[in-house]
Amino acid sequence: MHHDLDLHLDGPELTAALTDIASVSGEEGPLADALERALRRLPHLSLTRHGNTLVARTELGKSERVVLAGHIDTVPHAGNFPSKWEGERTRLSGVGTSDMKAGVAVQLRLAATIDAPNRDVTYVFYECEEVNVERNGLFLLARDAPGLLDGSFAVLLEPSGGVVEGGCQGTLRASITVDGARAHTARSWMGRNAIHQAGAVLEILRGWTPRKPVVDGLEYHEGLNAVAITGGVAGNVVPDECVVTVNYRFAPDRSAQQAEDYIRELFSRWPVAILDVAPGARPGLTAPAAAAFVAAVGGDPRAKLGWTDVARFAELGIPAVNYGPGISEIAHTPGEYVETAQITAAERRLRGWLSG
Amino acid sequence: MHHDLDLHLDGPELTAALTDIASVSGEEGPLADALERALRRLPHLSLTRHGNTLVARTELGKSERVVLAGHIDTVPHAGNFPSKWEGERTRLSGVGTSDMKAGVAVQLRLAATIDAPNRDVTYVFYECEEVNVERNGLFLLARDAPGLLDGSFAVLLEPSGGVVEGGCQGTLRASITVDGARAHTARSWMGRNAIHQAGAVLEILRGWTPRKPVVDGLEYHEGLNAVAITGGVAGNVVPDECVVTVNYRFAPDRSAQQAEDYIRELFSRWPVAILDVAPGARPGLTAPAAAAFVAAVGGDPRAKLGWTDVARFAELGIPAVNYGPGISEIAHTPGEYVETAQITAAERRLRGWLSG
Repeated sequence: MHHDLDLHLDGPELTAALTDIASVSGEEGPLADALERALRRLPHLSLTRHGNTLVARTELGKSERVVLAGHIDTVPHAGNFPSKWEGERTRLSGVGTSDMKAGVAVQLRLAATIDAPNRDVTYVFYECEEVNVERNGLFLLARDAPGLLDGSFAVLLEPSGGVVEGGCQGTLRASITVDGARAHTARSWMGRNAIHQAGAVLEILRGWTPRKPVVDGLEYHEGLNAVAITGGVAGNVVPDECVVTVNYRFAPDRSAQQAEDYIRELFSRWPVAILDVAPGARPGLTAPAAAAFVAAVGGDPRAKLGWTDVARFAELGIPAVNYGPGISEIAHTPGEYVETAQITAAERRLRGWLSG
Repeated sequence: MHHDLDLHLDGPELTAALTDIASVSGEEGPLADALERALRRLPHLSLTRHGNTLVARTELGKSERVVLAGHIDTVPHAGNFPSKWEGERTRLSGVGTSDMKAGVAVQLRLAATIDAPNRDVTYVFYECEEVNVERNGLFLLARDAPGLLDGSFAVLLEPSGGVVEGGCQGTLRASITVDGARAHTARSWMGRNAIHQAGAVLEILRGWTPRKPVVDGLEYHEGLNAVAITGGVAGNVVPDECVVTVNYRFAPDRSAQQAEDYIRELFSRWPVAILDVAPGARPGLTAPAAAAFVAAVGGDPRAKLGWTDVARFAELGIPAVNYGPGISEIAHTPGEYVETAQITAAERRLRGWLSG
């Protein structure tokens, strides 16, 4: 189907139009086509397409360049497509409204209406954020054409309730293998029950106290959870193995290596295998570009606890924050919605920052 | 294939011949055919076939009738078929040698050579003991023709190392469901981790002290084990459910209902579902027929800890014991074997009991 986007619509209306072009991860083609046609009409932007990812840049030769980025994919529909207005158009509900068609609408409005910004701006609209990293448009861009992401500061328009969220926590998954010795349950004292032994792992988890370090002025809140447990051979056999999988969410004052060391030390009585790890990102709000941004949009920044693509910019050496309309807590739920007032407010504040 | 059994062979040789007729559960036909032809030639026995189960009875009008029973199936082969002699024919190794072709050989030798026993004897050769109960030949016989199992006492020639094993423990499986509340692991304090909570179930299991009650003079030894544990939703989700499956092996001074009540009480903080339960059997060695048997074969009886078809006779109101050549601990292992001396000894003692 051929979709046309009217960039003269206001932020909330444009959010509805974007929401109603289905773009579940891997199926962003029609939306990327519509965005490409709309952006192509803006003479002050130079446009590059990479897969279903679009990069639109002003080329004004300013001393500073900032990046505004948002993903265009959504999680699968859950009976919540297309969008619906609620109240007196105070809310728009539907899949992807908060996460993050509203943010994309704000990016588009800024791209279409600010032809002479006070700093050079790179607008990135990228694919496949909701699925595994190998397909993530920002990851592919960083790998294949990192120059397109150059800048001194980046804003991800992820839903943050209109508050600046700085940095992000890292995430590590590890499996802890508790062993035992098999025996028939009729003579269980001939064996050693691995599931019973795993109680000691759970005791450590239950007794664990989360760190809440303050990093660059923002307070983080760590988490350590069993996310899976498996054990058992047969209904009459004392099991010889029980595997507990844990997920450690660590504050950005720890590196991935330090997080790994910490988990190995905490469970040093058992073999520990690291399944995956993604480093966090310090908020970096003391960097001049970030401080200027916070001053311009106002409010009290808070720590981002989940992992976001902010960490990807951090790896490229670019300080980044989350700042966008929408509520992250209801993202991925059938009842997802966005407050229209937040869309308008985010656009106004970002416009002030870029045209002040 | 057509097999012929020579009942003039001695016990160990007959064990080898029986072992070399494959009879994995469900495939006992050829062995049952061979047994039927051999037993048919014995004029002092009346023979009934039920599926692949054979019942051969003396009909001498004695005041007492005893049952000698053994299953003719084996677990699947594990590179240990056919049988092999070891040492100076001191051992016969192979699948089913201990469990329980040796016992079947002893039954056959007694059936063939004692034409005027001092009590009426019912020899039962039954199918499918190693698989689920609905296919068990003794279960089917008890259901369809219970009169064929009549008697005042029964001996199961299961491997017991030539020691009389009395009664058997019951077995019960139950699942304990621990609940929690889902949350994203980045904000785990919004949820309640069911796997962590399950640590309290494991604590009860680790701290549990087995009862060792003496029942009718024999000491039992209970067991309570987690045999499975499952929990987990996804790598980034605090799980809202963890299920622990336990197996309780209970001494025969407790009924199935008492065992169930005990488990529900022990884990009263959580929903408990009883998955299956099989009652045990008291040893009943004080009954006259049993006492006479123990006096005749000698040795110190011990408690049977595993569940066996002894419990099935108990349900029919017939006191029963295990007594046979072979070692139960190595049954079902690739290295299964039987000592030839045990075969000869068991035959001699049972002959003394039936012809004294």
